[in-house]
Amino acid sequence: MHAMEQGSVQEHGRSRKPSKIWVINERVRVGLAEALSTYVMMVFGLGSVAQVVTGRGAFGEYLSVNLGFGLGVAMGVHIGGRVSGAHMNAAVSFSMCLFGRLGWRMLPVYILCQLIGSFLAAGTIYSLYYDAIYHYCGGNLTVSGPKATAGIFATYPAPYLSLHAGFLDQVIGTAMLLLCLMALSDQRNQPAPSGGEPIAVGLLVLLIGVSLGSNSGYAINPSRDLGPRIFTAIAGWGPEVFRAGNGWWWVPVLAPMVGGVTGASIYKVFVELHHPSPCEHRREIEDEAEEEAAPLDMQKNLSPEVCV
Amino acid sequence: MHAMEQGSVQEHGRSRKPSKIWVINERVRVGLAEALSTYVMMVFGLGSVAQVVTGRGAFGEYLSVNLGFGLGVAMGVHIGGRVSGAHMNAAVSFSMCLFGRLGWRMLPVYILCQLIGSFLAAGTIYSLYYDAIYHYCGGNLTVSGPKATAGIFATYPAPYLSLHAGFLDQVIGTAMLLLCLMALSDQRNQPAPSGGEPIAVGLLVLLIGVSLGSNSGYAINPSRDLGPRIFTAIAGWGPEVFRAGNGWWWVPVLAPMVGGVTGASIYKVFVELHHPSPCEHRREIEDEAEEEAAPLDMQKNLSPEVCV
Amino acid sequence: MHAMEQGSVQEHGRSRKPSKIWVINERVRVGLAEALSTYVMMVFGLGSVAQVVTGRGAFGEYLSVNLGFGLGVAMGVHIGGRVSGAHMNAAVSFSMCLFGRLGWRMLPVYILCQLIGSFLAAGTIYSLYYDAIYHYCGGNLTVSGPKATAGIFATYPAPYLSLHAGFLDQVIGTAMLLLCLMALSDQRNQPAPSGGEPIAVGLLVLLIGVSLGSNSGYAINPSRDLGPRIFTAIAGWGPEVFRAGNGWWWVPVLAPMVGGVTGASIYKVFVELHHPSPCEHRREIEDEAEEEAAPLDMQKNLSPEVCV
Amino acid sequence: MHAMEQGSVQEHGRSRKPSKIWVINERVRVGLAEALSTYVMMVFGLGSVAQVVTGRGAFGEYLSVNLGFGLGVAMGVHIGGRVSGAHMNAAVSFSMCLFGRLGWRMLPVYILCQLIGSFLAAGTIYSLYYDAIYHYCGGNLTVSGPKATAGIFATYPAPYLSLHAGFLDQVIGTAMLLLCLMALSDQRNQPAPSGGEPIAVGLLVLLIGVSLGSNSGYAINPSRDLGPRIFTAIAGWGPEVFRAGNGWWWVPVLAPMVGGVTGASIYKVFVELHHPSPCEHRREIEDEAEEEAAPLDMQKNLSPEVCV
Repeated sequence: MHAMEQGSVQEHGRSRKPSKIWVINERVRVGLAEALSTYVMMVFGLGSVAQVVTGRGAFGEYLSVNLGFGLGVAMGVHIGGRVSGAHMNAAVSFSMCLFGRLGWRMLPVYILCQLIGSFLAAGTIYSLYYDAIYHYCGGNLTVSGPKATAGIFATYPAPYLSLHAGFLDQVIGTAMLLLCLMALSDQRNQPAPSGGEPIAVGLLVLLIGVSLGSNSGYAINPSRDLGPRIFTAIAGWGPEVFRAGNGWWWVPVLAPMVGGVTGASIYKVFVELHHPSPCEHRREIEDEAEEEAAPLDMQKNLSPEVCV
Repeated sequence: MHAMEQGSVQEHGRSRKPSKIWVINERVRVGLAEALSTYVMMVFGLGSVAQVVTGRGAFGEYLSVNLGFGLGVAMGVHIGGRVSGAHMNAAVSFSMCLFGRLGWRMLPVYILCQLIGSFLAAGTIYSLYYDAIYHYCGGNLTVSGPKATAGIFATYPAPYLSLHAGFLDQVIGTAMLLLCLMALSDQRNQPAPSGGEPIAVGLLVLLIGVSLGSNSGYAINPSRDLGPRIFTAIAGWGPEVFRAGNGWWWVPVLAPMVGGVTGASIYKVFVELHHPSPCEHRREIEDEAEEEAAPLDMQKNLSPEVCV
Repeated sequence: MHAMEQGSVQEHGRSRKPSKIWVINERVRVGLAEALSTYVMMVFGLGSVAQVVTGRGAFGEYLSVNLGFGLGVAMGVHIGGRVSGAHMNAAVSFSMCLFGRLGWRMLPVYILCQLIGSFLAAGTIYSLYYDAIYHYCGGNLTVSGPKATAGIFATYPAPYLSLHAGFLDQVIGTAMLLLCLMALSDQRNQPAPSGGEPIAVGLLVLLIGVSLGSNSGYAINPSRDLGPRIFTAIAGWGPEVFRAGNGWWWVPVLAPMVGGVTGASIYKVFVELHHPSPCEHRREIEDEAEEEAAPLDMQKNLSPEVCV
Repeated sequence: MHAMEQGSVQEHGRSRKPSKIWVINERVRVGLAEALSTYVMMVFGLGSVAQVVTGRGAFGEYLSVNLGFGLGVAMGVHIGGRVSGAHMNAAVSFSMCLFGRLGWRMLPVYILCQLIGSFLAAGTIYSLYYDAIYHYCGGNLTVSGPKATAGIFATYPAPYLSLHAGFLDQVIGTAMLLLCLMALSDQRNQPAPSGGEPIAVGLLVLLIGVSLGSNSGYAINPSRDLGPRIFTAIAGWGPEVFRAGNGWWWVPVLAPMVGGVTGASIYKVFVELHHPSPCEHRREIEDEAEEEAAPLDMQKNLSPEVCV
């Protein structure tokens, strides 16, 4: 999806040599958009969890959380889509770098701004639902137990889940995310319709929540999980947020990196590498054109590269 | 979104000098559309609450109310979208004026018509669900208690919510609304697809309900809240509708004004101000064009202004 | 929406004089499409009710019925959209005739085919859920009581609803339907995006179910209600289906006719009549064009009529 | 939908004579895409069932399964849409062959790859939810009874359903699927909007789940059902998966073939055969054009064939 369609950022780590000031300006521009995108996604996402938990089912159910994160992602893409690409996810940014669609020099900017955005969003939701949280748990901020509230902000594994099964869970979840993101942005296949990218990505995240969420809350995103976890450590839940679930915290940080690259590679190996080259494709069409008019939807697959 | 794309109205308070009769006609035209938009949104929105409350859960749940207001807003935008802009929300109209997208002289027209629309919608829902309401509460119209029905029409805060927390709740909710509306209509970023604006705005309102609704029922709109509240005061619930929740009524009137401006400003500061100027942008593209064909989606960002 | 965009059918009752055989062929063509559209909508709609009733909540809830009818309508519009217009509703066809968008001579064809479609759909659902219905009610097909199953096919009012309140309910529901349909197809306002008409109409029907459905099951459509009711009278529920609810059956037949015309008229009076005439509009734009390029979205409002 | 829009594959069994190597390459290309499409659809679909079953209602409900399969199908179409057509369903491939839209020689490739995809998806979900399944059923993998888990992978009929009623259920379900798929891809009617095909097909599958799912779990797809059933037979549920429900397993394999062809034929007979031929259509329009400009949406129905 995102960065893929957007030229300016990608160029950074590569060929053209822009002036130093322009580079700094550009980083500020991209960083601000990425931070705001992530902030918006996280306010909506965390808000939906807070509402379901503190409302004891009167203000939504598990599906509301899926909607909150799914549509939250869609709005996030609207906020930063054509500026930063609105990754809002360190695993996405990392995969983009690895596949040459984002300069490595931009990676720290993206990750830092994502973490700032999600940290601030956790703070916003904490302020907004302060009364509701205290009313719900009686002022006792716990990470586990019947009135646990730490799960509003960061993810924790189900009690039955072993750590390596949890790692696999996060790898597969993020692999499915990147695999589908690759398809949604592959202009030589059946991509998201132009202008419909935000909602397509949002529905994908909703779908992952509906299908792959019950084991450990589908973080599938280091930036989504780590920022709010740090916030809760500071805001009153204490170091237990890092100890819970056998020291679960590092799983949604590391596993999505592995999963993201895996998923994107699978798409490349199964589909993208086998696309006919534009030239082959063009020649084929020209052959057919001698007999009958080429169908429109094949022509639009032609990229403007020169064929010899 | 709305007024932004529509030229005629904006002109009013500004440069061109149309004849007096044309101005009056135009106000009538815009006012009628704005009133009908708001009426349609409110009939659907209030109807969904009435159905959930009087049906005791057999005809929908909290999510139905989110759908009712979300899709109701979408239909409202279809009704008045290209005539009045279909603000349906005094906080939106106020922000549009402040940012120069609507003439101040039109503000009273918008607010008045919105209030008339939502007042009449409350009346319609009262007539439509009259039997259901009386069957539910046994003819005793109350504002609080187990069989309260005033909440069908206007919003009331949760019992645990302090007044200043409620004010913050309405500020943040409306800020998220305007922040995202700015992005959805920013043609130099990733806006709602052409023709898809109504459903995009509808999904945004649904999302706010899913994420930021449990504290006080997400009025985030003075016109949505005040009109029906006045109706209930007259129709049998009495002055208690203004006293309940420590005199809650003024919060959803004032806080959204503050929040709307805040949210729109945040988008401006974080994203809009940093867009490259069209000329810069064009020159950049022309530079690249010497080497390779410019990607299509960058070209469409160019506005037809003259660059020197 | 539908018939409005489609030229051939409208012509019938009017100016051009096609050969008799062509007229008969055309009626067959339009009638078959209208019947199949209605059939598809009704199989999906009635199926969703059957599933919720006989599944006792394990296979869906009230919202599923809203989805079943909403998306069912969308699929129906895909089936017959550009052939018959896919009204699937006698109240829509009647309003189209009254406003000159369908020849009166076609009205009986539409209504008859709609009734055949919905009758056959009731038969299909009865066969499909025969085992489930008998398992649910123990073979005792009743119209009211705890194990009533007639409500799977036709609508019945809530016990608390008086007959005149039910009439009002159906008038208002259908008025909202037609009011919004008029807006969705008004090319000089903010219509449904091209190609997105089916889903827009589907979401509208979903919305009416979410907001205006609990009083009497939102028939808002004589064709949807009468066909299946006749089927149940024959299939084993007997004449009680016409007696229940104080002889409710005629309300969803007559009231939608009144409501449809009312709703369409309201849109006309509040919005459509006030659209600037194309000539006015064009001149205005030409004036502006002297100063700056006219925005694209205004130009597309121009119809190709001659302005002098 | 799918294969219909895609030229290269169809050609295979027919006129042009490509080199042998190209044919093999093409089969690999199409097969890989079809397998990955089916895999993605099934991971999301089966995942949603696993989550609802093992979560005992805390992580979704019946509607979540409808969303999981519906949006899963949409993502599957994005994955293979313009490469293999993303049938993901042997009944769809079979109907395409029968109606001349896919060469018969390709049928085994499609079916085999679909089965491999759904088998692997079952394996993935088994690994992913291994802890959850064992925690839920206490390590006792059963096909029926209160803690049955075989239904996570393959479909089983409701206890009340006779075998021939189940056959009818699968015939009708698949008939509705193909009937609507034909309409969604009929460019001379009201098809899915360009680019919106994946979501339109996804909503159709969601709708079938909402309306026609409670009798036997709406397999409507041999590839979806048989692959995972074989997996469960091997993975620990044993041969009981083939014996359960009076030897139910062959019904979702055979009945969808019958249903698919039936549904597609119904659309052809009721709608497609009656489309005016392009030449008739063109002449008609030219006639009208003498009087007034032809409406745009009729012109686009013209195919570029030569009319004499």
